[in-house]
Amino acid sequence: MANPISIQVWNPSGKYRVVSTKSMPGTRWIRLLTDQDCRVEICTEKKTILSVDDIVALIGDRCDGVIGQLTEDWGESLFSALKRAGGTAFSNMAVGYNNVDVSAANKYGVAVGNTPGVLTETTAELAASLSLAAARRIVEADQFMRAGLYDGWLPHLFVGNLLKGQTVGVIGAGRIGSAYARMMIEGFKMNLIYYDLYQSTRLEKFVTAYGQFLQANGEPPVTWTRAATMEDVLREADVISLHPVLDKTTYHLINKERLAIMKKEAILVNASRGPVIDEAALVEHLKANPMFRVGLDVFEDEPRMKPGLAEQKNAVIVPHIASASKWTREGMATLAALNVLGKIKGYPVWGDPNRVDKFLDEKSPVPAACPSIVNAKQLGLPVSKL
Amino acid sequence: MANPISIQVWNPSGKYRVVSTKSMPGTRWIRLLTDQDCRVEICTEKKTILSVDDIVALIGDRCDGVIGQLTEDWGESLFSALKRAGGTAFSNMAVGYNNVDVSAANKYGVAVGNTPGVLTETTAELAASLSLAAARRIVEADQFMRAGLYDGWLPHLFVGNLLKGQTVGVIGAGRIGSAYARMMIEGFKMNLIYYDLYQSTRLEKFVTAYGQFLQANGEPPVTWTRAATMEDVLREADVISLHPVLDKTTYHLINKERLAIMKKEAILVNASRGPVIDEAALVEHLKANPMFRVGLDVFEDEPRMKPGLAEQKNAVIVPHIASASKWTREGMATLAALNVLGKIKGYPVWGDPNRVDKFLDEKSPVPAACPSIVNAKQLGLPVSKL
Repeated sequence: MANPISIQVWNPSGKYRVVSTKSMPGTRWIRLLTDQDCRVEICTEKKTILSVDDIVALIGDRCDGVIGQLTEDWGESLFSALKRAGGTAFSNMAVGYNNVDVSAANKYGVAVGNTPGVLTETTAELAASLSLAAARRIVEADQFMRAGLYDGWLPHLFVGNLLKGQTVGVIGAGRIGSAYARMMIEGFKMNLIYYDLYQSTRLEKFVTAYGQFLQANGEPPVTWTRAATMEDVLREADVISLHPVLDKTTYHLINKERLAIMKKEAILVNASRGPVIDEAALVEHLKANPMFRVGLDVFEDEPRMKPGLAEQKNAVIVPHIASASKWTREGMATLAALNVLGKIKGYPVWGDPNRVDKFLDEKSPVPAACPSIVNAKQLGLPVSKL
Repeated sequence: MANPISIQVWNPSGKYRVVSTKSMPGTRWIRLLTDQDCRVEICTEKKTILSVDDIVALIGDRCDGVIGQLTEDWGESLFSALKRAGGTAFSNMAVGYNNVDVSAANKYGVAVGNTPGVLTETTAELAASLSLAAARRIVEADQFMRAGLYDGWLPHLFVGNLLKGQTVGVIGAGRIGSAYARMMIEGFKMNLIYYDLYQSTRLEKFVTAYGQFLQANGEPPVTWTRAATMEDVLREADVISLHPVLDKTTYHLINKERLAIMKKEAILVNASRGPVIDEAALVEHLKANPMFRVGLDVFEDEPRMKPGLAEQKNAVIVPHIASASKWTREGMATLAALNVLGKIKGYPVWGDPNRVDKFLDEKSPVPAACPSIVNAKQLGLPVSKL
């Protein structure tokens, strides 16, 4: 699984030295960097997670920028080491940056990049994939086949849910939550109930218009409801997907009490952050309710699971692959590389980090800008007028 | 998995004796029959597949009707046994009836029922579930987690397909193929290419209207193409689902040569009939092309798989559960029971066997009609005017 590419890219004319702590999908980002007087070094270490000491060694005594990962601890030690080596740019290959101490980066004048704008659809499609796999019990049915247990059609074998006409519940109707809602509404004619502190007028308007479109086509409309409380969503929905931000208010948002008010045959999906669910309580709930099903991309003690989860047949569990589509991962790699390159070159910062199509289009020239620098203001970086 | 219900329902005032060869999902059908002077006997035999002799013994010397399964061989022996026992009605709990010799049924004056009208959406949703599971490698990723192999996020871990903007190919755009196409087009904004001997004007018109609706909403439209040849679909589509009728012309429709023209990273789904694919050739293709993925609900030698298939990580394999939703299976059970009851009671045959809502609505009285009798004409049964 690990590191299919294992290369060092030496550009003899390269004025800059950029380190990538992992090999990254796609080759376009390497080409873009090496076209720009860069020498790229890709860590070929087989360890999944690099320690601070590992990365200090990679940086060495001359390094202009680093492309790193969510699993690394970017704080005082690493930013000071990068500064000592002459570096001014770091980019996570991720949209989140909870692994980065941005004030330490500010202190050493290092730009911190991330990769928004390319994860929404891929993440929402993973949540939809988990929803459908749980609804139709795909993983347990596959194991039953591979175990050679199938000896003929039976009326009760792996009976699951028909989604059409059921209700999809969305907790957190931001960018990803709204994209997921639309997949389930348009794809499977589900009705929507959502809970969010903010009204999602855009989503509501869309569902209303889509319902009218269906009616004009002689079909029953779909409906939406903005719930007054999260409990209303949990009580009413047949499939519930979690898309909140993780903070103090959403830690263990789904706990024993809230699991208890969900339907006995409901489906719960989490492709947001692990600690949003009290995972130990979830394991007990799965044991007590065999037709309750869950699809999980993230875990409270990632990469570990709480005891008992791996034994539950009514769980679909995947290793944090929400953004794992070829298009998205290549896009993330490209954006991370261009963040580092842009800062080294002294480019301004792109105006809207969620609209990054121009950086990804292989047919036209890449804009001379940093796609997304999260501490641009603190570092006083100019904003691109492109 | 087998027979969770194991009951015999004795209605002391029952004038009629109806045998069900398997326990069936839902209890509404039992209630409907026993309300009508019927005595229902459900076979509690643990065998998955009953032999002709098993069923002859169940029929005994007095039996008015039988509810049976696709896995049973209904021909001369069983219809003559049923006739000798005074029976006049049989219903498959299935929409297909390739297990039934209808001319033998005609000879003994036995009505043959089936259960159309409740399978379309559930079957199409299973094909969509297999498509998404294959696209995002859900089964292999789940096994990786359960095996304890996940030790941290990696950029290359289980990278799959983003469906948005890709092309969905549908071979056979009938009722189920069209429903599947719409799920993938509306849910995931895929473009359609389809092949069918008949033009699917209804589907084409819908996709055109939906594309205009998206544009009016400020989004890129989706498109459709009716392919001149099946090969065009195989060459151009990223996800291909098979929905043909199985006959001489579609046996091994997907063979070694046709697999070879598909994209190396394409996804192939089959929830129609097993022999449509040359399964041995498919196993070789999966071995040679690790990023080619397949989702299979049916098998050439069902319930067995061709050697090597169970070892392929790039396959999602489920045991013929396309119609396995609670709503559909309960609907099938209800319709099968009402076919038998209706014939015993001398009811006429329902006009449109694909519009069976009135038989399924628990809130209103059930129509006095047989929902779907395939040899109604041959037996000279009257058609309901309801």
